[in-house]
Amino acid sequence: MPRRADINFKLIIRIIGFLLMVEGAFMFTGIPFSWYYCGTTCHSLLYSGLITVGVGALFYFGLSGKAISNNIGKREGYLIVSFTWVFTSIFGTLPFILSGAIPNFTDAFFETMSGFTTTGASILSDIESVPEGILFWRSMTHWIGGMGIIVLSVAILPVLGIGGMQLFVAEMPGPTPDKLHPRITHTAKRLWGIYVLLTFVETIMLMFGGMNFFEALCHAFGTMATGGFSTQNDSVTGFSPFIQYVIIVFMILAGTNFTLHYYALLGKFSHVKQNEEFKYYIGIILVVTLIITIPILIISNTGIEQVFRDVLFQVVSILTTTGFVTSDYLLWPSMLWLIIFLLMFIGGSAGSTGGGIKIIRHLMLIKNSALELKRLIHPQAIIPVKLNRKSVPNDIISKIMAFFLIYMMIFAFGTLVMSIIGLDFETAIGSVAATLGNIGPGLGLVGPTGNYAAIPDFGKWFLSFLMLLGRLELFTVLIIFAPSFWRK
Amino acid sequence: MPRRADINFKLIIRIIGFLLMVEGAFMFTGIPFSWYYCGTTCHSLLYSGLITVGVGALFYFGLSGKAISNNIGKREGYLIVSFTWVFTSIFGTLPFILSGAIPNFTDAFFETMSGFTTTGASILSDIESVPEGILFWRSMTHWIGGMGIIVLSVAILPVLGIGGMQLFVAEMPGPTPDKLHPRITHTAKRLWGIYVLLTFVETIMLMFGGMNFFEALCHAFGTMATGGFSTQNDSVTGFSPFIQYVIIVFMILAGTNFTLHYYALLGKFSHVKQNEEFKYYIGIILVVTLIITIPILIISNTGIEQVFRDVLFQVVSILTTTGFVTSDYLLWPSMLWLIIFLLMFIGGSAGSTGGGIKIIRHLMLIKNSALELKRLIHPQAIIPVKLNRKSVPNDIISKIMAFFLIYMMIFAFGTLVMSIIGLDFETAIGSVAATLGNIGPGLGLVGPTGNYAAIPDFGKWFLSFLMLLGRLELFTVLIIFAPSFWRK
Repeated sequence: MPRRADINFKLIIRIIGFLLMVEGAFMFTGIPFSWYYCGTTCHSLLYSGLITVGVGALFYFGLSGKAISNNIGKREGYLIVSFTWVFTSIFGTLPFILSGAIPNFTDAFFETMSGFTTTGASILSDIESVPEGILFWRSMTHWIGGMGIIVLSVAILPVLGIGGMQLFVAEMPGPTPDKLHPRITHTAKRLWGIYVLLTFVETIMLMFGGMNFFEALCHAFGTMATGGFSTQNDSVTGFSPFIQYVIIVFMILAGTNFTLHYYALLGKFSHVKQNEEFKYYIGIILVVTLIITIPILIISNTGIEQVFRDVLFQVVSILTTTGFVTSDYLLWPSMLWLIIFLLMFIGGSAGSTGGGIKIIRHLMLIKNSALELKRLIHPQAIIPVKLNRKSVPNDIISKIMAFFLIYMMIFAFGTLVMSIIGLDFETAIGSVAATLGNIGPGLGLVGPTGNYAAIPDFGKWFLSFLMLLGRLELFTVLIIFAPSFWRK
Repeated sequence: MPRRADINFKLIIRIIGFLLMVEGAFMFTGIPFSWYYCGTTCHSLLYSGLITVGVGALFYFGLSGKAISNNIGKREGYLIVSFTWVFTSIFGTLPFILSGAIPNFTDAFFETMSGFTTTGASILSDIESVPEGILFWRSMTHWIGGMGIIVLSVAILPVLGIGGMQLFVAEMPGPTPDKLHPRITHTAKRLWGIYVLLTFVETIMLMFGGMNFFEALCHAFGTMATGGFSTQNDSVTGFSPFIQYVIIVFMILAGTNFTLHYYALLGKFSHVKQNEEFKYYIGIILVVTLIITIPILIISNTGIEQVFRDVLFQVVSILTTTGFVTSDYLLWPSMLWLIIFLLMFIGGSAGSTGGGIKIIRHLMLIKNSALELKRLIHPQAIIPVKLNRKSVPNDIISKIMAFFLIYMMIFAFGTLVMSIIGLDFETAIGSVAATLGNIGPGLGLVGPTGNYAAIPDFGKWFLSFLMLLGRLELFTVLIIFAPSFWRK
């Protein structure tokens, strides 16, 4: 019989305890909004925060007396990442449940997981009836999730070797590339600084456009995390064109590799210009917007500026996996919403807060497919894929292909599951694509003007799992289910 | 400037000329049926045959005087394969056009390409009004196509190195594995013998079940080639349960790797039992039939035998990419036809006449994905994919992944194209999946009880191209469009 692997569970519990304390502290930040808006929710946020900090402290200090090794192996890494999202989502439901805004645990868990995974899929039918303090917490889950994703995608996943994420880590200027620990800390701190700065600037600009501080902050959280929770029932539709353009710009920034922002701030624009993923990212936005704008201009009587703005907003919102809405793409001719649907499978840039398959993976796969033809013609030659003028090792291409395949298999299997529980075809494929890709709005019932309230309970749990899978780049979660993970 | 590659066009033209003469000879075989049924189509078949043989002879002998090297390089191989299907399809339209059965060239080309690629997608709304001689030619295109596919998939594509087809060629007992030419000839002859034998046996059994000789032969052609053209408007629906079971059995045989039939005939059943692809092939048929039969039994009042037979027939027909119909799966609950739709992406076994992605590729990809998790846990270990207890080289796995990716990209792109020309979503994805996978019936307008008549002309040409792409394992055709193919 194979022996069980030694896994440092005590350390895992301790780290999750620490992160729960941080989560609880973030809950307190919503209390001022509850007070200001004279709501009764301050107690629920206070109690939620206290419970979360308390349990976290119990986890953290309860084990401090015993000797704990500080060695974090790969196994511990995977478990910490997956369980962090699960535990923070469980405790993150407290404000929703205690305030009565979402009394049902399944619904509250779906909403919180959707928040922390920066998906933005909501079960709320009337968002505006929810107290401000709770809405603030809802948007805050996005922002915290975005912070988690930045450190995860730039510092942790590449070290764990997941799905080709190694590709762009070489791009990041580290203080000492061979020393892992200080490098992770430095990288995370710098990129969080950029994240906070961009959130701050967007908040100011949204207020300048006429939003109040609460609305501006919530929408900035939703934008920078590429989340998509709004404070309004009709998402961003009712806000001014200026505000919509501001959100478009910041969605684009949020879907960009954050290391490029860092270079740009240092004035090293050559790095930005040479980055192939960034070129394709901007290229896709421009080309797709053009392709959709022209036919809509021809068939509708709306002015050119509004059509352009609506299309650009929707293209950027879906491509970056944000999910804010200014117009219902399901009302467009079917070929046009089909393009939007296909965008759901592209996703943002690697190293951004955007989800989905990611542009860099598509870029590698398309290049490799084209080279496969060349390899058939010259079977003896070794023809590597190149990115930013450097050769990409074969095993990374192989990992990217495996990622894509598993993504598509989960998509097909997920659609089947959602059909089995009784959803129509469009809602089934739309809900799976939109949660697995961490987008939010999908097709059918869960389209841009709909929500996930009508999905059966089992479906909500299943889609929550898909959000987690998609957000943690599949392998981080799937590996825990592999028998060899638990063997020595 | 790069120099142009030396391509032996004279040899290519000569070989295609030879194959056109063969095609013309096959056209003559339909003449007895025209006479017997007192039709006027004997002249059109006669003239078509004469024209085709004539042009073929012109191609073949017109170049015989000049010195032609007999060296077939890889480039010539690709061109011969692709152009053979295109040219035989062009000349194969003659009987349809000259008899007036399908006066329009676009329609006739679609029907003929559908025949030669063993797709079975039809533009005919009233099949029974077409003269027997012409229907015989229509079914004959399937049978000829099936012969082409056997030699292609077992002897030519593995040599060209396409999409992992090397994988099972090692399985085939050749006289001298290092001598290519006699090996190809021997292999092809033996497998064609099996093909002819199975067609003969099926014809006898169908006649035993009550079909006349003409019907039996046409349906045997359609079955053994996994084509799907029938002589009846309602496909196989109107025939007896016995006939339906016979067709089920022979569809399963046609979707099996033909080298396994060879082993079985030699009495070497251990090779059959050890073949992993065959196990999964039978497994998928049984499991999917069970999964679909049970809910239909619960919701319908039909007897258990008929439900089982209808479901088994449809599952086998779609999985083997045949496309015969005994019941309209679009009338089943949406989760059940979604399963049928997913089957369209699986396909038959490699080395069979079945099309699609093929079971062996899925098997390799699923195994590789599972191992990818193991590789993450043990990054230093080399963990190869195994098939039939042997390790599969990494570059073959890589080729299979590239194949799958390009297949899915073409599927997505094709759906977009079909939407752009005005088809609804279901018809668009259904028609692309059903032609690219060489199946025939799809979803929506082109479902089991529909046909391709209403598709706009551009769409018919586009879908014809997809049939060719799918049938020739993508790369054989795509490579011709690669600039490096034409460079030295």
